[in-house]
Amino acid sequence: MEFHKRKLLTIITESIMEDAIEQELKLYKISGYTILDARGSGQSGLRDANHETDKNIRIEAICTEEIAKKLSLHLKQTYYENYAMVLFLTDVEVLRPDKF
Amino acid sequence: MEFHKRKLLTIITESIMEDAIEQELKLYKISGYTILDARGSGQSGLRDANHETDKNIRIEAICTEEIAKKLSLHLKQTYYENYAMVLFLTDVEVLRPDKF
Amino acid sequence: MEFHKRKLLTIITESIMEDAIEQELKLYKISGYTILDARGSGQSGLRDANHETDKNIRIEAICTEEIAKKLSLHLKQTYYENYAMVLFLTDVEVLRPDKF
Repeated sequence: MEFHKRKLLTIITESIMEDAIEQELKLYKISGYTILDARGSGQSGLRDANHETDKNIRIEAICTEEIAKKLSLHLKQTYYENYAMVLFLTDVEVLRPDKF
Repeated sequence: MEFHKRKLLTIITESIMEDAIEQELKLYKISGYTILDARGSGQSGLRDANHETDKNIRIEAICTEEIAKKLSLHLKQTYYENYAMVLFLTDVEVLRPDKF
Repeated sequence: MEFHKRKLLTIITESIMEDAIEQELKLYKISGYTILDARGSGQSGLRDANHETDKNIRIEAICTEEIAKKLSLHLKQTYYENYAMVLFLTDVEVLRPDKF
């Protein structure tokens, strides 16, 4: 069995949240993650990557289902009320389960 | 039950299609979506983000399975013949089902 | 049956690997793929898209499960020891199975 099931946690939020999310990931022992610059539209109105204050980021990290769900609920409770944030979980298969 | 199943619709197409896709999303009542700049290779030949005319975009939106499938078929019928476009659906879990 | 199951292969690696990965995809007859610029953190330490030498890329391609698994194992054997690389597979549904 070469492939192992994990969860991919994807977080889309305001770019000013980058440091805060990185700190949260570290608190949950997630050392590997990827950040992409994004733009888009959400409940808070149109966002445009050309306007510095409206930049979004898309962060993704692979972890166990347990950690993915705990961290998701924590982020919801901590940030959803005051920041534009969307998160979702996806089933993925990885080759090195000890890394995630 | 904190997590709810939805579909993630991902569309990869030419950057000149950005406004058209945004209009389509709005017609299907999808108010939240994320756009990323991309480059790549497809049936239409190599595309390079450094060449303005060859830029691609990657748009993703979360919605119900019904809307995801209806919109996908509409986009296929409307654009596949004349534009470089790839789309795919992924199962995702979200925390606020009323938002999608 | 309009939608067909395929695998999405996502590879996150150092930006200097872009040409090598493109060659690997072509060897496995994968002609369509998308590349995004990224930054992030991994086992090799913090990476920042603002530092040319630390740029990451995120490559994704849709293919059959057979090809996705063969290529994944090949990439692992060829690059994991000497390069920062993470890859994962996701189940996706597409409209034109003959393209993937």
